[in-house]
Amino acid sequence: MPEPASFQAPTGTRDMYPADAARRRFITEAWRRVSVNHGFEEVDGPTFEHLDLYTVKSGEGIISELFSFTRAGGEKTYALRPEFTPTLARLYAAKAASLPKPTRWFTAGPFFRAERPQRGRLREFLQWNVDLIGDDSPAADAEVIACCVELLSDLGLKQSDIRVRINDRRCVARLLAQIVPMESVPAMFSVLDKRAKVRKEEFIGLGVALGASPQAMVALDSILDRSFPLAGEAFVQSGFFEHAALSRDAFDVLVQDLKLLYDALAARDLVSWCDFDFSIVRGLAYYTGIVFEVVVGGERAVAGGGRYDKLIELFGGPATPAVGFGMGDVVLALVLQDRGLMPKDDELMRLSGQRPDVFVIAASPEADAAARRLVATLRRSQPAPEGSTQRRIPALHARQTSKTTRNVGKLLKEAADLAARLAVIVENDAEATIKDMRTGQQDETRTPLADLPTVLRARLASA
Amino acid sequence: MPEPASFQAPTGTRDMYPADAARRRFITEAWRRVSVNHGFEEVDGPTFEHLDLYTVKSGEGIISELFSFTRAGGEKTYALRPEFTPTLARLYAAKAASLPKPTRWFTAGPFFRAERPQRGRLREFLQWNVDLIGDDSPAADAEVIACCVELLSDLGLKQSDIRVRINDRRCVARLLAQIVPMESVPAMFSVLDKRAKVRKEEFIGLGVALGASPQAMVALDSILDRSFPLAGEAFVQSGFFEHAALSRDAFDVLVQDLKLLYDALAARDLVSWCDFDFSIVRGLAYYTGIVFEVVVGGERAVAGGGRYDKLIELFGGPATPAVGFGMGDVVLALVLQDRGLMPKDDELMRLSGQRPDVFVIAASPEADAAARRLVATLRRSQPAPEGSTQRRIPALHARQTSKTTRNVGKLLKEAADLAARLAVIVENDAEATIKDMRTGQQDETRTPLADLPTVLRARLASA
Repeated sequence: MPEPASFQAPTGTRDMYPADAARRRFITEAWRRVSVNHGFEEVDGPTFEHLDLYTVKSGEGIISELFSFTRAGGEKTYALRPEFTPTLARLYAAKAASLPKPTRWFTAGPFFRAERPQRGRLREFLQWNVDLIGDDSPAADAEVIACCVELLSDLGLKQSDIRVRINDRRCVARLLAQIVPMESVPAMFSVLDKRAKVRKEEFIGLGVALGASPQAMVALDSILDRSFPLAGEAFVQSGFFEHAALSRDAFDVLVQDLKLLYDALAARDLVSWCDFDFSIVRGLAYYTGIVFEVVVGGERAVAGGGRYDKLIELFGGPATPAVGFGMGDVVLALVLQDRGLMPKDDELMRLSGQRPDVFVIAASPEADAAARRLVATLRRSQPAPEGSTQRRIPALHARQTSKTTRNVGKLLKEAADLAARLAVIVENDAEATIKDMRTGQQDETRTPLADLPTVLRARLASA
Repeated sequence: MPEPASFQAPTGTRDMYPADAARRRFITEAWRRVSVNHGFEEVDGPTFEHLDLYTVKSGEGIISELFSFTRAGGEKTYALRPEFTPTLARLYAAKAASLPKPTRWFTAGPFFRAERPQRGRLREFLQWNVDLIGDDSPAADAEVIACCVELLSDLGLKQSDIRVRINDRRCVARLLAQIVPMESVPAMFSVLDKRAKVRKEEFIGLGVALGASPQAMVALDSILDRSFPLAGEAFVQSGFFEHAALSRDAFDVLVQDLKLLYDALAARDLVSWCDFDFSIVRGLAYYTGIVFEVVVGGERAVAGGGRYDKLIELFGGPATPAVGFGMGDVVLALVLQDRGLMPKDDELMRLSGQRPDVFVIAASPEADAAARRLVATLRRSQPAPEGSTQRRIPALHARQTSKTTRNVGKLLKEAADLAARLAVIVENDAEATIKDMRTGQQDETRTPLADLPTVLRARLASA
């Protein structure tokens, strides 16, 4: 009888067995660690929101990409959250007056898109969001970029693997407005976005159709291949100034913010990770200035973000500048796995604290009850003594075999396989022998069972 | 202008500002720590499942309690997960042959109920699930109960606060079958469940309506007030044996599993936390034996669970015994807050690792660039030297002021408020002075900036 479809996970979602959950934890803890080190504080919102929260920002067009629903008999329509930024804007707007300036927030949790699943793209995925709100300086842009780069570096990716592609949408819009009518600028953004996917002639044709001269499009095309056109030299060489009727001085004003960002990145030793690339526009309509995406191995975007200075206002808050980025877990995990940077299962268990402190072995049937009681005792935290800075004396991770064997050698092998730090061989109802599994050294004298909790904690602290 | 409703969180869901997220983390990390110490491994499933996964177990009646939805243009109906057990059964059934025996799993994540929100009950909440699969012994029941009790104990609740109310549904069913016709036993469970809410006469009347004699109901009522009727004495005194035509020997067979559970709890020093209570039936239809709920302060159920030996079969797996429980975060947080056991905000920041390692102060305008570069450097992890057991030399949590003041005294105050462990006063572009914020001691000599990363790590390790 074939298994009914209902007994499988929905398309594009994941079942997580222990090794999968440990890989997830490896990534979410890295996100958390790097966020905290950079002074960001955790926030979160509901898993589903009112549908309007998304349409007010992105228009009705977004509905087909969402999982939306109405409660039976209810009037309101909800949607599983496809991204965090609208929630963040709502959170900030609600308490803007009492929040610190700037506010530094991160979050990491599940998000949902009703798209067709493919490699690197699922319907349920995790996303890390880092946002710096209330600071319009290029230093704020550099701060969030630094946090994003450090995450990748912390996970073992090298500078040679990573490019941060940076652009300034406002600057590009103004440049494009020199070669096409103002109302065609948004359409020109789409043309820029398509450039990598079409032949040069087609790219030029698309621009000409929007009102650009063929010469201006050729100049534009040649500029877009340069990685750092800020100095304007590439523009001079391309003839762009001429075709766009733009003075060198006016150009320098346009790229001023990008230059300041360059200096802020230089102050953080990050320039060598970054390319300034005029073809990066990012799809999201709400970016108002700097945009960036982080590409690994020249192809996969693992993160993207930018400045969205109008959004908090849109959600009822005061006019507030903000910059942030998002990083999903699916592409990141693929990148780590492809490069051998995802730890092996046993190391993951150790990293996620799932390595036993103590593995307890009953050496004889008479020792069974005492061994069971010892395990129960070790797994219990204790009230801390008065004057201690700890809340409680922490419990230990204690394990026993689930097999029926009484062969102490085999059981010590099991302790080693689990990477237990200490093994305790309970000899009878009064005494036990301790073995350090790292050094392989076994005590020559036995320890009274009553002393074990204290003795074992001391051994673990000194190991 | 009133704020539009769409810019608030949906009814029954939560916005989490940093202190709220830190409280959530405090709870989820305790869940995780206790699970791991008891040898349970983390698993998880999708946030939404095929709707059938819930109706196959609970019937169509559950649909009104769920948030269910169909993708635009799609055929399948999904539901936000209201509980974890069906997902767990599906996960186990899919890989039963290759999983360890027994399998010990935990999970903690968001769950959803389309109920009317009230104190202690939200539409989106977190739930911790702990399950032991493939072991039908009362020792397995005792293991999960021990894990549940240790969580509460670890968070500071005392034995006097907590009662674990335990019953055996199968045993009660057989007892009830002695006084009403077999087909009325399920209805009698509902009568038992109602007992606490109705007057004695009404309770007796409900049983009589189902075919019990008034005398048997009076006897049953008197038994239900006893906390530990296992020995049968309470039954003898009540006259129940007489009215139910049950022999003392037959009774002893019926309560055999409860007696074994009693012994297994005694072996773990847990008997004093537990009451055996014949009125606990638990609503969920899938429990097949032992059921229990954990009540704090005599009223609030913070956790509930039991044995569900038929469920994995229902989801296509082999016949497999299983026992587990669930605990939500909403009631737990209320209980901790009511008892003053939820840490204050500043302690939460420390517990969640959000206390800065280093607070960097620029003593003069000339030191600004150097201070900013130092912060960036400290926030960066480094490749570990060859032969190290670490993957990377960890980054530090480094902070700077976001204020414009240059008053070093005020900035040291800010470092103290953030509970930073060290403060570094950058004097110029070459040197800095270190201050230990715990002892208040400030170095008499300056440290070259280039040496700071190493010196600061050594100070932090020895603190």
